Amino acid sequence: MPQLPLSPGSTLGILGGGQLGRMLSQAASRLGFDVVILDPQPDCPAARVSRAQITAPYDDPDALQALGRLCDVVTFEFENVPASSVETLAEAGALVAPGPTALAVAQDRVDEKTYLNAVGAVTVDFAAVSTLDDLTNAIDQLGLPALLKTRREGYDGKGQVWIRDAADAEAAFEAIGRRPAILEAAAVFNRELSVIAARGHDGAVAVYPLGENIHANGVLKTTLAPAAVDAKTQGRAHEIASAVLDGLDYVGVMGIELFDMGADSDGNSVLLVNEVAPRVHNTGHWTQDGCVCDQFEQHIRAIVGWPMGPTEAHARIEMTNLLGDEIEQWRALAAEPNARLHLYGKHEARAGRKMAHVNRVLGAV
Amino acid sequence: MPQLPLSPGSTLGILGGGQLGRMLSQAASRLGFDVVILDPQPDCPAARVSRAQITAPYDDPDALQALGRLCDVVTFEFENVPASSVETLAEAGALVAPGPTALAVAQDRVDEKTYLNAVGAVTVDFAAVSTLDDLTNAIDQLGLPALLKTRREGYDGKGQVWIRDAADAEAAFEAIGRRPAILEAAAVFNRELSVIAARGHDGAVAVYPLGENIHANGVLKTTLAPAAVDAKTQGRAHEIASAVLDGLDYVGVMGIELFDMGADSDGNSVLLVNEVAPRVHNTGHWTQDGCVCDQFEQHIRAIVGWPMGPTEAHARIEMTNLLGDEIEQWRALAAEPNARLHLYGKHEARAGRKMAHVNRVLGAV
Repeated sequence: MPQLPLSPGSTLGILGGGQLGRMLSQAASRLGFDVVILDPQPDCPAARVSRAQITAPYDDPDALQALGRLCDVVTFEFENVPASSVETLAEAGALVAPGPTALAVAQDRVDEKTYLNAVGAVTVDFAAVSTLDDLTNAIDQLGLPALLKTRREGYDGKGQVWIRDAADAEAAFEAIGRRPAILEAAAVFNRELSVIAARGHDGAVAVYPLGENIHANGVLKTTLAPAAVDAKTQGRAHEIASAVLDGLDYVGVMGIELFDMGADSDGNSVLLVNEVAPRVHNTGHWTQDGCVCDQFEQHIRAIVGWPMGPTEAHARIEMTNLLGDEIEQWRALAAEPNARLHLYGKHEARAGRKMAHVNRVLGAV
Repeated sequence: MPQLPLSPGSTLGILGGGQLGRMLSQAASRLGFDVVILDPQPDCPAARVSRAQITAPYDDPDALQALGRLCDVVTFEFENVPASSVETLAEAGALVAPGPTALAVAQDRVDEKTYLNAVGAVTVDFAAVSTLDDLTNAIDQLGLPALLKTRREGYDGKGQVWIRDAADAEAAFEAIGRRPAILEAAAVFNRELSVIAARGHDGAVAVYPLGENIHANGVLKTTLAPAAVDAKTQGRAHEIASAVLDGLDYVGVMGIELFDMGADSDGNSVLLVNEVAPRVHNTGHWTQDGCVCDQFEQHIRAIVGWPMGPTEAHARIEMTNLLGDEIEQWRALAAEPNARLHLYGKHEARAGRKMAHVNRVLGAV
């Protein structure tokens, strides 16, 4: 295992070469690190701004061995990294951050919610579903409407279906492929918030101001940050983030999606955790233009053992994703003062594909 | 010649793979462009964050042909690009920006000052020197002390020597290798300022707030920006920049170093132009953390035919170069709140070599 903190000139590895890997790589370069990407797609977006790419599946033992030998530390842009891949990287001499426990918890929605509740981060009520009988029982227990999701994989609204009538249970189970699942009670929330937090090897935790998110068709459309929340709500988010990160001995940035349920009868802010992502997060892109140290640099700092950077916002930002052919808006956006464009270098604008985002600087904080 | 504006996904070429090429490449990637670097040094700093490198001398015809065919537009990080290289690139179908006129003027200190004076940008008095006799005459004309510089090449104080006594003239001429030279009168200035300006293919000019510079041993140490200047001084700098850029039909970012001579008897601000650089400039690095659109993005916008970005500063910045083993300060700087580090990925910290810079955010403007 390498000696921390890593010096500039060290080499970092990233599993996954999409936009998150690309922006992580750019942040790492700014701090003087070289970056190697592992991704099965040749010439992926992250590789085009990195020192090298190893083109192979994420579970290819030879590729992982090679990456682990080249790199002092390896991280990832997505949570569905096979546990065996993490083991191979560690055997080859690389530090892997975040570690296997955080990955395992985040890969299974039942394990994730069980963990969250155990550290005092409240979620909606839920039940594990393996069979149609389980599902029927879960509907009795939780009521309807309820949301059926696969336990593993699925993102941006994929692999999930709302059940509004008990008669639709079997069709819903069919729709998700009769795979191991979770049924979640519906949350009647005021708004969707998220908090981006980081934790270093030394246990120091850094928490950004909350963002308020607007989704469309299950995909994030806009984040407004810092969100207009009172100090109690920000404080509660900070508590949740610290508990979740500390409990996993987590290293790196985590994105935590929250439901703002308003205040309880004692006036305390009630936030439910919707889900966590053990990586940089789309709802944290606003930090690129709102903070001195953005979430990408923060993640790099955490994994290489540097001190956490500041998290204060100096500007109010409206982050908007550009999906599919919305990328054609670049012409208008290029002419818009205070609109900062971040394009991902994807040459094919498939429908719904995340192509870019724009951070609009709304003013000083 | 390509159709402007260039769309994201187009490929840009950069001659020169040092830190300026690296930061240009990073800005281009953020706007969705792919970047190819031409540099004789394998694995140069810019190549490690770019799609590809062509490893060859800057005047290698085959390499230039290849670069010109790959790229829609080609730019450079240094001014000493051979005119023949620019011709080869243009023949291969690439737009080259800035153009050959700007390069030619900037490559010869006598031509540069002659041009500047012709467009109303005042400089110190000067005389061309080809022989020792010329030098003796120039000393009679300009007085002493005076600064002898080679007409071509030389930067960061290299290729220049102060003459304080007429008896030292021959030794000085010897010291610069008896090469074609310029003798410049000494300027008694209050301080050194610089202005970063850009001009698009459509003739639009964008000018950043002035920076105040502190040099040590002929090398830039610190820029404080926006400089504490009155509106008249900023206005005069804007006039100078517009005249210099318009007169060359310039496309891209230019750095203009100025001597602040104070006010004349009518109260007008007197600024002498010390020198111009037809490229992004070390004294403009503060814009990375002080402006929504920094000088690197601005240069990319100009050469690809996008609208100029905003130039207002939102933060006061102190930019400090880290030379040679000053790079070891990274440990302390990483722990300093509001210090934003920019490392260049150079693995060998030779004495005096520019290894990194740090932008300290001093506060909101």
